[in-house]
Amino acid sequence: MSRELAVVLLSGGMDSTVCASVASLNYSLAFLHVQYGQRTEKKELECFYKLCNYFKPEKILIARAHFLRDIGASSLTDVGIPLPKEESGIPSTYVPFRNGIFLSIAASWAEAIGGSKIFIGVNQIDFSGYPDCRETFIKAFNKAIEVGTRPETKIEIATPLINLSKREIVELGMKLGTPFELTWSCYGEEDLACGECSSCSLRLRAFVETGFKDPIPYRKR
Amino acid sequence: MSRELAVVLLSGGMDSTVCASVASLNYSLAFLHVQYGQRTEKKELECFYKLCNYFKPEKILIARAHFLRDIGASSLTDVGIPLPKEESGIPSTYVPFRNGIFLSIAASWAEAIGGSKIFIGVNQIDFSGYPDCRETFIKAFNKAIEVGTRPETKIEIATPLINLSKREIVELGMKLGTPFELTWSCYGEEDLACGECSSCSLRLRAFVETGFKDPIPYRKR
Repeated sequence: MSRELAVVLLSGGMDSTVCASVASLNYSLAFLHVQYGQRTEKKELECFYKLCNYFKPEKILIARAHFLRDIGASSLTDVGIPLPKEESGIPSTYVPFRNGIFLSIAASWAEAIGGSKIFIGVNQIDFSGYPDCRETFIKAFNKAIEVGTRPETKIEIATPLINLSKREIVELGMKLGTPFELTWSCYGEEDLACGECSSCSLRLRAFVETGFKDPIPYRKR
Repeated sequence: MSRELAVVLLSGGMDSTVCASVASLNYSLAFLHVQYGQRTEKKELECFYKLCNYFKPEKILIARAHFLRDIGASSLTDVGIPLPKEESGIPSTYVPFRNGIFLSIAASWAEAIGGSKIFIGVNQIDFSGYPDCRETFIKAFNKAIEVGTRPETKIEIATPLINLSKREIVELGMKLGTPFELTWSCYGEEDLACGECSSCSLRLRAFVETGFKDPIPYRKR
């Protein structure tokens, strides 16, 4: 029996790649990468291509959504706003409604190619407080997809990491053989991960907790 | 007292322009135009600029969303699929989850600039049967915006045309002085409107019913 097709939102970061490993267990893969003028756009695309080479998805789509840079209002897309080292509340790295945009592109593509699932690596435990990463948002968006597509279209958003700690995400990836060496999480640097931004900090702490060594190069651990 | 800011999704078509006229009564305007590789992209952009010159919005954003052409699966974005003259059921002009994408860009921009409303000219009476034009979809999407943005962000989707007939939309526009001569509805042509595609047919019939003459040039009425 042929497998159902799943669209996987794959940034090239740790979470989305573990998510791809989970999806690969039961689905044919359609990898969606969104470029949006973020600081490490080039590095993330490079990781995406390497991950395509690793996972061999059936389909890929690279969507250019550079209007998010024009919209700005985030330290990820506006280099005039410094990246924070410590975060509290909703940090400056929050990109307004980014996951709404990503999920709507994914829903459009899934409807066009007959995908039945959208995998997204959101997490509401060890996370940055982004409102569009929480389960209430995912549920509301799934409802919008359900009523906003053809009656015969059935798409479900899958969030296998949503209630895992970062440590548990690393452990799950290790169990599934996720190629962490091909991923990138640093918000600001493209050669050596800075080790200091909030994304590096969360990642490094998770690896320390598991006892595994993070295989990517850091300027400072 | 300064007016609140409203993001208006303005394609340059008749409905979105009447919608802009309604928004202009009570709001400062932020016009959002999305290019997505549709057949009449160039003409629609030209109309958008003329409408900006007419309405003098406070802000404008032109978002390039050409991934919709890559996604395809619609006769609007894939010239290999012929445009239908008669439509029944959900027609081939349906672009998968297009309004989900448009509304998510609008929500992102509204959150970034402090807009409190998103105006969209959807209509569920004399419409093409697109699932993402119905009130159930708009309500579900508004909920997704509510839970997927910052707690202090309050954005409401306004759909002043949703329960009007096409005739009533023309009458409303006439009352408000909508510059119909600057709008474009034809799905396929950019010089003379074809008069035969489903969008032209709906528009022409509405003008005939009101007794007004549609001011744009047609190859065939």
